Amino acid sequence: MMRDVLVIGVGMTQFGKFPERSLRDLGREACWSALKDSGIQPGRVEAGFCGNALGGRVQKEHGIGQSVLWEVGIRGIPIINIENACASGSSAFREAWIGVASGMYDVAIAVGVEKTVMKKGTMLDIGDADLEVKIGDVFPGLFAMRAQRHMYEYGTTLEQMAKVSVKNHHNGCLNPYAQYKKEFTVEEVLHSTMIADPLTLYSCCPNSDGAAAAIVASKNVAKKSSAKPIKLLASVLSTGLYHNKKDLAMFDLDFKVAEKAYEMAGVGPEDINLAEVHDAFTIAELMHYEGVGFCKVGESGRLIDEGETEIGGRIPVSPSGGLQAKGHPVGASGVAQIVEIVWHLRGEAGLRQVANARIGLAHIMGGGTEGDVGACTIHILERVDEI
Amino acid sequence: MMRDVLVIGVGMTQFGKFPERSLRDLGREACWSALKDSGIQPGRVEAGFCGNALGGRVQKEHGIGQSVLWEVGIRGIPIINIENACASGSSAFREAWIGVASGMYDVAIAVGVEKTVMKKGTMLDIGDADLEVKIGDVFPGLFAMRAQRHMYEYGTTLEQMAKVSVKNHHNGCLNPYAQYKKEFTVEEVLHSTMIADPLTLYSCCPNSDGAAAAIVASKNVAKKSSAKPIKLLASVLSTGLYHNKKDLAMFDLDFKVAEKAYEMAGVGPEDINLAEVHDAFTIAELMHYEGVGFCKVGESGRLIDEGETEIGGRIPVSPSGGLQAKGHPVGASGVAQIVEIVWHLRGEAGLRQVANARIGLAHIMGGGTEGDVGACTIHILERVDEI
Repeated sequence: MMRDVLVIGVGMTQFGKFPERSLRDLGREACWSALKDSGIQPGRVEAGFCGNALGGRVQKEHGIGQSVLWEVGIRGIPIINIENACASGSSAFREAWIGVASGMYDVAIAVGVEKTVMKKGTMLDIGDADLEVKIGDVFPGLFAMRAQRHMYEYGTTLEQMAKVSVKNHHNGCLNPYAQYKKEFTVEEVLHSTMIADPLTLYSCCPNSDGAAAAIVASKNVAKKSSAKPIKLLASVLSTGLYHNKKDLAMFDLDFKVAEKAYEMAGVGPEDINLAEVHDAFTIAELMHYEGVGFCKVGESGRLIDEGETEIGGRIPVSPSGGLQAKGHPVGASGVAQIVEIVWHLRGEAGLRQVANARIGLAHIMGGGTEGDVGACTIHILERVDEI
Repeated sequence: MMRDVLVIGVGMTQFGKFPERSLRDLGREACWSALKDSGIQPGRVEAGFCGNALGGRVQKEHGIGQSVLWEVGIRGIPIINIENACASGSSAFREAWIGVASGMYDVAIAVGVEKTVMKKGTMLDIGDADLEVKIGDVFPGLFAMRAQRHMYEYGTTLEQMAKVSVKNHHNGCLNPYAQYKKEFTVEEVLHSTMIADPLTLYSCCPNSDGAAAAIVASKNVAKKSSAKPIKLLASVLSTGLYHNKKDLAMFDLDFKVAEKAYEMAGVGPEDINLAEVHDAFTIAELMHYEGVGFCKVGESGRLIDEGETEIGGRIPVSPSGGLQAKGHPVGASGVAQIVEIVWHLRGEAGLRQVANARIGLAHIMGGGTEGDVGACTIHILERVDEI
């Protein structure tokens, strides 16, 4: 019943700290870039989906999608704002896909936008409602526990985790859109300020401001678009407990969503040429290697040791620099991953280009404390020579 | 390409001030009622959509839909949270409709939940970004200007506006779910505390806590549901400037959305047996009579004078008590309107039942200051004797 959907335009702002820029300003730049990239007029867009996680809380703004799209002349159509924590942008992209895949629209835009850079000393918790948060169980602590367990279960080392940061910061140096363009050594990562043992400052992604946008369309529109068509093979979103409570060292939800995504796409992990995963913490990237099937459970340390996930390796992960170096404007990250994958599949990724990339995967997860539930999305995209 | 969608279960909490109840608690009650009403098991629900406007801001909570649905055993499926100001709940309901209409899911749930009751003296503005807000142009002021203009243009009187409050508070007395069950006279409305001339305290809707849920399904599932099937004839969402800036006395967006909705439903305003409209202020209900075509522009004062929108009148509006008396938990209101319409179409609305109701309309609008844009939804539902 679902028809083919193609990405016909992408764009993003540089990620970074931009106290002088508004959500509206950042979103507008990303949408405008995506429109220019696609070559279609704003009036052709039939529906808009905006991913934003914290605008109500940090900027006290609502109806952000309406404001952003109004600025680029996209008006008089259905627009909704979607919050799914770190998966807000990818969930917005998925709704755009559903709209076009179902035949309801021929063209839809997904934009993700966020400003999370706050005054020094301010901290974002993950909700007042959770007992866990009240006793200090915030994200770095949660991921530190996962890291401890992964080290205990599989012998994963501090050095292996640090190598994720080293790799991603190296990639960030090649990406003009990245927030951080600075190389680190394993030693520097290990000896940066301890945040939550074993996670140091350079093991954690930063707070960031930024926006990203992607335009999806049906075949008939895509044929007339100026950009190289990229086909969406799979779009899966699921909610669940991240991990079986008996096993902190595995993301249960990753495995479930990945299985559905590969089935939908008709490909396996061995067919993926590059990926962006949710590397909010170094340990997270390693656990996601296992969760999406790039290696067996417990072998992610070996994968990073052997350089398989570097650009030029067997399966490059986070060529953009990932959340670690590119930055993590929460609601924008899911769309920015799609933008990065599209650039690689088109061969437009500049210095960080993954050679001969044909199929790419974007993975992101959001929300979820120990006692709570989260959201995880996986999108698989493919370069097609003809529509 | 779209297939028929039926509402197979509805439920809601009482609306009111519940400082001791969480978003999760309220949402759970509404979802559980809807599930019981439908007779289907939680595991049959394939997607969830949660409307919430202010949870990030007021409760500092995110991923509310995931938490609420987890509580009633709805897990391991796609769930997204939708913010569209006052149209958050109706936008969530519309996404559920798209999911089922497209064939992607057979059963989906929409839940709206909100807690807006705050400490005395606290005020919710509509965004820090707008110059208008900074100079005091908040909702009561905006609607007061509209009221002044409507009085000037069409001779609408203070008494006619007050009658909306009198009617809706009367209806609220018949609705066990209403926040306020108290009759008012025109004199009492006119002499209550002045908020923004000519709007007095009893001309404005209250802050409220509450939740509402609706389950939609395809024909094959609806056939086996225990509830009387109610068919969704139209679901339209659009973004735009509420009014042509030259005419504060008309909601441009209402006319546009209503036209699309009637076309989609294949019915006209003369076929509607009852409606719930966005009566956040008395003048708003009058303007929406005109906007959705229940009378000509400028004639809404006559409509209320002649009792046509009372229960028992030609076209009863806000039989639930509306936002004025039932209450206005922002993200819940759009779903609660659907719940009310469904009850009437089924003949289950108790003391406030609109006799022989076959087709009902729900209208709500969200966001939008003078310089900004908003969202407006209209849903049209019909009682069907056989699926």
